[in-house]
Amino acid sequence: MKSAEDLDRDDPLAGFREHFVGAESPLVYFDGNSLGRPLKVTGPRLQRFVEEEWGGRLIRGWDEGWFELPEVIGDDLGRFVLGAAPGQAAVGDSTTVLLYKLLRAAVALRPGRPEIVLDRDNFPTDRYVAEGVAQECGLTLRWVDVDTAAGITAEQLSAVLGERTAVVLLSHVAYRSAWVADVPALTRLSHDAGALVLWDLCHSAGALPVALDEWDVDLAVGCTYKYLNGGPGAPAFCYVAARLLDEVTQPIQGWMGAAAPFQMGPTYQPAGGIRRMLSGTPPIVGMLALQDMLALVEKAGVEAVRAKSVGLTAHAIDLTDRALPGVGVASPRDPDRRGGHVTLRHPRMRDVTAALWRRDVIPDYRDPDGLRLGLSPLSTSYAEVERGLETVREVLAGLSA
Amino acid sequence: MKSAEDLDRDDPLAGFREHFVGAESPLVYFDGNSLGRPLKVTGPRLQRFVEEEWGGRLIRGWDEGWFELPEVIGDDLGRFVLGAAPGQAAVGDSTTVLLYKLLRAAVALRPGRPEIVLDRDNFPTDRYVAEGVAQECGLTLRWVDVDTAAGITAEQLSAVLGERTAVVLLSHVAYRSAWVADVPALTRLSHDAGALVLWDLCHSAGALPVALDEWDVDLAVGCTYKYLNGGPGAPAFCYVAARLLDEVTQPIQGWMGAAAPFQMGPTYQPAGGIRRMLSGTPPIVGMLALQDMLALVEKAGVEAVRAKSVGLTAHAIDLTDRALPGVGVASPRDPDRRGGHVTLRHPRMRDVTAALWRRDVIPDYRDPDGLRLGLSPLSTSYAEVERGLETVREVLAGLSA
Repeated sequence: MKSAEDLDRDDPLAGFREHFVGAESPLVYFDGNSLGRPLKVTGPRLQRFVEEEWGGRLIRGWDEGWFELPEVIGDDLGRFVLGAAPGQAAVGDSTTVLLYKLLRAAVALRPGRPEIVLDRDNFPTDRYVAEGVAQECGLTLRWVDVDTAAGITAEQLSAVLGERTAVVLLSHVAYRSAWVADVPALTRLSHDAGALVLWDLCHSAGALPVALDEWDVDLAVGCTYKYLNGGPGAPAFCYVAARLLDEVTQPIQGWMGAAAPFQMGPTYQPAGGIRRMLSGTPPIVGMLALQDMLALVEKAGVEAVRAKSVGLTAHAIDLTDRALPGVGVASPRDPDRRGGHVTLRHPRMRDVTAALWRRDVIPDYRDPDGLRLGLSPLSTSYAEVERGLETVREVLAGLSA
Repeated sequence: MKSAEDLDRDDPLAGFREHFVGAESPLVYFDGNSLGRPLKVTGPRLQRFVEEEWGGRLIRGWDEGWFELPEVIGDDLGRFVLGAAPGQAAVGDSTTVLLYKLLRAAVALRPGRPEIVLDRDNFPTDRYVAEGVAQECGLTLRWVDVDTAAGITAEQLSAVLGERTAVVLLSHVAYRSAWVADVPALTRLSHDAGALVLWDLCHSAGALPVALDEWDVDLAVGCTYKYLNGGPGAPAFCYVAARLLDEVTQPIQGWMGAAAPFQMGPTYQPAGGIRRMLSGTPPIVGMLALQDMLALVEKAGVEAVRAKSVGLTAHAIDLTDRALPGVGVASPRDPDRRGGHVTLRHPRMRDVTAALWRRDVIPDYRDPDGLRLGLSPLSTSYAEVERGLETVREVLAGLSA
């Protein structure tokens, strides 16, 4: 097993860590999959924006680039992160609101089909949104029970798909186990049943290669404050495949989604293209940090980011196996099926998490016994992983002493 | 008629202008009702937030105040701007999304009543949202035709109200004419018919005193990037009267609106209180500028802000009457019925607007012949109004030469 020192020395992306606020801090940050660190350029960029663009250009800013920003950043996301040709992605609203719009859109595209398929380990907001949409549209939720240490398989999905299925709502990477769903296979199965798929990319975008166009995905949504370092509550993104853009509709009709937003005509006519998925005035200030991070992901290349991510999670699992007796690995050991985080299990993990926070090691806790280590590839070093897991060992030893 | 110099000298709020970016600039800004200027503290505040709070506290920020911020700022808004006791207002989403949620909520509270009443001069997004909600809920829009130089009257509203009315959707200040609706009277009429009212405060919040509790308003929504200087696309706010909070529901069910957001339980249970109107992760970065502006409004007092606003619009009308022959005033001359902007009419206003922009005088143009002067009370001086209208005079003289 290579040492953290060797791994960091051999890491072609090691230098990227210096771009993040806190790189020099002794704090161990294992929650970049929940809220990514800011880039060092982000603070000055926001200050400059306030003084020069907002303060200097004022309302003229809308004519000088702000208006197009949701689509411009959407295209960048498509190119660097999502594997999507231009014109299919846009930024705006929260993940929850976009999920709602996309799920309503999907249901409307499959009239007469009364079921939404989703799995019980889907992220709570996904389940809550689906519950609400099912209720208001008179549909039924068809739940798939999955092993919480894994994720949904082709067999499990096949068992529930059929002519009743309107839409399948799944996560690319499971938020607890980090299981990587086989998106192309599950998408194909859904299509074979005549259903649409809506993929939640919250826990994959920016950490794993995504190829929405190649995988023939219909709809996707994701957040930008995890591996895309957009900041707390940064706006989410949506994707609608080009082939659906003419027919797709969504229920929250606002001026930004209208064909002629400045004409302010008497009735709503949806814009052509992805802009029809937008509703209100886009959150410009909230998009700026994301824009800088996308430039960094482009520079690194998402394949290299993924290689580093696999290296980090593999190192965490190695260290757990060697030095943390009694601690189980609740994430897939097969790197191809494992996302950017690793969940460790132990009956005392709730107490362990509290003790770690007090010692400036910041992981996440997930009921009932999960310690979730989110290892954001560009801002995390192997030494940080080692330091963090050594602290876990010390804390566990202290608890059992 | 007092000179601008005298008016500025006698203005008790004159010093507040120094708090805004661009106060020293020769640019004349007449669009603070569309996008307010940033405060000078906003840029440094954002930079500090990125480095110290986001970058330093990372995910811990959610436990240390971010989570409550939508309600904390909502309460400040209630106290300083909306006339609302704590627990009834929250910040989040765009105005359009909040309008959608509130309108759906209102419709759900009045089952069996098939009409939404609104006026044709309502802001486009309001009309579009209502169109969408009516369509999906099987309701009818009951339109009120209003004089575009005025707004809806009690007589006009009475004529359409009845047992069929579920909800009345109106603007406190009309976005074109600046007509100030008689909120308490129209609210009472709606209640007498058994309907709910939803007030759009976009063009009043921060410029006019609002007394939602006293006026017995049911629901309200408004934006924070106009007179509240929150920045381009800053999140909106919603208000739900305390007496409705137990029964109100909304369709976009996300983790932030759930009773136990960190428990991530199997089914959605709405939170008690105003938080049930929220859906996704709150846009923290987008709320910071608003927070500073609220502190400034508190310092000035909204009554004093209103007095300055009336003074500015009266001065603009005086100057128009005296020096702009052929130019009409499309806003109410009665200051009690006039909001924070003034719309001037002339057949050449489209060309005038373009020429003004080239000369660094920035008003808004509104079809077919309106020049809209938004005079943000705390950041606009009487001298600025005079300089701007003198430029209008020069431009008009040049066009007719």
